[in-house]
Amino acid sequence: MRGMSKKGLTPQGEDFSAWYNELVYEADLVDLSPVRGSFVIRPYGYALWENIQRDLDAMFKATGHENLYFPLLIPMSFFEREADHVEGFSPELAVVTHAGGKELEEPLAIRPTSETIIGELYSKWVQSYRDLPLLYNQWANVMRWELRTRPFLRTTEFLWQEGHTAHATAEEALEETRRMLDVYATFARDYAAIPVVEGEKTEGERFAGAKQTLTIEAMMRDRKALQSGTSHYMGENFSRAFDITFNDVNNEQAYAHTTSWGFSTRFIGAIIMTHGDDAGLILPPKLAPHQVVIVPISRRNDDEATARVTAEAQRLATSLAEVGVRVKVDEREGMSPGWKFNEWERKGVPLRIELGPKDLEAGTVLLADRLSGEKDTVAIDQVASRVPGLLEAFHERLFERARVFRDEHIFEAETYEELKEKVEHGWVYATHCGDPESEARIQEETKATVRCIPLEGPSAEGTVCVHTGKPSGYARKVIFAKAY
Amino acid sequence: MRGMSKKGLTPQGEDFSAWYNELVYEADLVDLSPVRGSFVIRPYGYALWENIQRDLDAMFKATGHENLYFPLLIPMSFFEREADHVEGFSPELAVVTHAGGKELEEPLAIRPTSETIIGELYSKWVQSYRDLPLLYNQWANVMRWELRTRPFLRTTEFLWQEGHTAHATAEEALEETRRMLDVYATFARDYAAIPVVEGEKTEGERFAGAKQTLTIEAMMRDRKALQSGTSHYMGENFSRAFDITFNDVNNEQAYAHTTSWGFSTRFIGAIIMTHGDDAGLILPPKLAPHQVVIVPISRRNDDEATARVTAEAQRLATSLAEVGVRVKVDEREGMSPGWKFNEWERKGVPLRIELGPKDLEAGTVLLADRLSGEKDTVAIDQVASRVPGLLEAFHERLFERARVFRDEHIFEAETYEELKEKVEHGWVYATHCGDPESEARIQEETKATVRCIPLEGPSAEGTVCVHTGKPSGYARKVIFAKAY
Repeated sequence: MRGMSKKGLTPQGEDFSAWYNELVYEADLVDLSPVRGSFVIRPYGYALWENIQRDLDAMFKATGHENLYFPLLIPMSFFEREADHVEGFSPELAVVTHAGGKELEEPLAIRPTSETIIGELYSKWVQSYRDLPLLYNQWANVMRWELRTRPFLRTTEFLWQEGHTAHATAEEALEETRRMLDVYATFARDYAAIPVVEGEKTEGERFAGAKQTLTIEAMMRDRKALQSGTSHYMGENFSRAFDITFNDVNNEQAYAHTTSWGFSTRFIGAIIMTHGDDAGLILPPKLAPHQVVIVPISRRNDDEATARVTAEAQRLATSLAEVGVRVKVDEREGMSPGWKFNEWERKGVPLRIELGPKDLEAGTVLLADRLSGEKDTVAIDQVASRVPGLLEAFHERLFERARVFRDEHIFEAETYEELKEKVEHGWVYATHCGDPESEARIQEETKATVRCIPLEGPSAEGTVCVHTGKPSGYARKVIFAKAY
Repeated sequence: MRGMSKKGLTPQGEDFSAWYNELVYEADLVDLSPVRGSFVIRPYGYALWENIQRDLDAMFKATGHENLYFPLLIPMSFFEREADHVEGFSPELAVVTHAGGKELEEPLAIRPTSETIIGELYSKWVQSYRDLPLLYNQWANVMRWELRTRPFLRTTEFLWQEGHTAHATAEEALEETRRMLDVYATFARDYAAIPVVEGEKTEGERFAGAKQTLTIEAMMRDRKALQSGTSHYMGENFSRAFDITFNDVNNEQAYAHTTSWGFSTRFIGAIIMTHGDDAGLILPPKLAPHQVVIVPISRRNDDEATARVTAEAQRLATSLAEVGVRVKVDEREGMSPGWKFNEWERKGVPLRIELGPKDLEAGTVLLADRLSGEKDTVAIDQVASRVPGLLEAFHERLFERARVFRDEHIFEAETYEELKEKVEHGWVYATHCGDPESEARIQEETKATVRCIPLEGPSAEGTVCVHTGKPSGYARKVIFAKAY
């Protein structure tokens, strides 16, 4: 496909969904696979995931967690041990019935999440309060057989990390649940330049088997919400189902309190839809596979000038790499500079350096900023010293742009009519009574759900439910929004 | 299980296999899982794998490869497109027949290796010679339903990387096949301190569908061989099966030449069995989760002295971490220092630092070397400057010990009687005619197989097959050995 000119994307304002579906392919992030609902993550998309993994993994380790690996396959009977869990996951399981040329005695499910098989082992590993806490995480593939799939957002197979911890007390487990939510929120802000709202899910939206589900919610450019990471407090639900008991300090038998928390390739969807524009991706510098692309511009019929430009581009790339910048020189033949500029814009590279024979003579380069669209002339010998600061500033501007956009599209509603009207334009703070039936009715009528009860936000004190008129079910107003 | 005293291991000389099976559990590398033949890789084992991944991945990237991710499930019909491939892999497949509550129209196999699904996509990605080479790799889990399993060595699910490349010419693909074999050999030597023999597999031992299989073979302490990494040249076999064609420089349609190369958690087995001794693991410093463990020794009924020792241990750990050493302070309560020494010996930590109140007064520590068993007194303020060099030297001594052991157990045989006798004591160079039937007969009678035709080694010129008396089938004598 190389060298083919690609058609422009459908503008976001015209059809956001079409824009997304075109962009994930046109930016070489994914490709279709022969298995329904599974996608190939291409090198450019996978490099984003590798960068996410590297930084998030460092944060897990800094908070005392170790990685390990549990088997892909889980005996079907395990799911039945926790009633809510089986109800939540069994309709989505992919099941191995035959292996090694024979029918299996008990079918095995491909893990949709690993609480059950991990619970089985934790039961063995935890004997005394001295064995606690267990603070483990795994990076793995999981499978949930979804009917309607979209690249990154909802796929039958996806990549994620799942942390699973066990603690002696509810208090410690709740602290861990919150700590890991904060890790996700910090990562979203500091690495992906995505402002998120931290909050708690209502009962109906909790993870299957959890007592508390915390979430980070991000606003996409179409003002829908995307749940971008969740952290669950399981109470004793799984330790009772899998017998994770220990002798406590007083030598009495007690159940451990467990948590789990997950973050997946779905977050790549959040990056695309939080920052992208009509020209394509805009990638946060800390996660971008290439932070800078250098496009050398050759002079037709002047091989000597072209060679000088290429040599200088390489020298510049080396000097950028030396200061820790991820840089690529686009030396491909057979494409025009303009074609390359478009391609790297579509791929969201934060800074582009254009270098031609005239620039070389002037001792300068043109430096194009993907976010502002501006081009600056910079002296060649200042590029390496200036770029790291420019990337920092790019991150800040990108975050600020997303924050302003989000804040401009969060409203408050006092009445149901107001909620219905405003939720067409963004997120809405409103008081809710907490009744699941009312929540379901609102969703039916508005397509909006309670994204979360935010940890910070307008108080619900003295207000009543916009839908039922009953007293508020929570200390704060909840956030209603349409969501992915 | 914490704090329980663990029984000693069966000595290697008494029953090597029992030694291995005990050690993988006693060193907290793995645990049993509820799924037959799949094992949980515990944090200490997984940390080894993470270190392997980190260093090997950097070598792949330095040789121009990018990572991506292909789906776990492969339509069953894909396997049938390459005749040798289906014959090799179909008896070992685990098959998903139901998903999302329904029976699938076409069963899906969990990947045993990904040539087929990757071939399908490469067919789409390769149109012109300008698209070549494709130099991709994925880190993934794979499944082969084996009947007899052993932790790391043979497991139904295992973790690995599989590189898959496509090239315009046979020459380039053969170069790549050899380049990646050399990467594996270099990694084994420079990171795992394992000397390996590089060689080519005979026809009968080739990867299913390959035209050439290169291998690195390592000698375990029981003198058996362990195939530790393989690199395959597929010729046009897969590109014909999956239609990976391109317009060449002369605008003529041509088939791509493909390669694949893999390295798995099996290599952890190689590390265990190349270096371990009766006391447990001996880990190569570059891959060891902890390169140094500090055991602070408290003084009974003297909290103040104990606090001083602990503070100094922490200070020492910080100074080691600052010079890039992976260090752990073992502050666990309720175990004696002697118990801890045994545990860290079993877990193969290269250097152990013992620090008690008397050492502190003298301004020294005791530094114990896992390989030599010697203890040296070292001034505290010299520890941080000396340890990095000691770890380097540890690596060299470990490699040299393995190399000497291997070379002392490689023999040459001129006759079949000699081969039968010597192969009981190690590896044997002998001339072979290349006839697969003769190879099979030798295996039946001696339990030894042709591990490889080594890339370097004694010439077969002027010699005849030790088994059939026919002329040599290869330029060099082959290596016969019993193997894992």
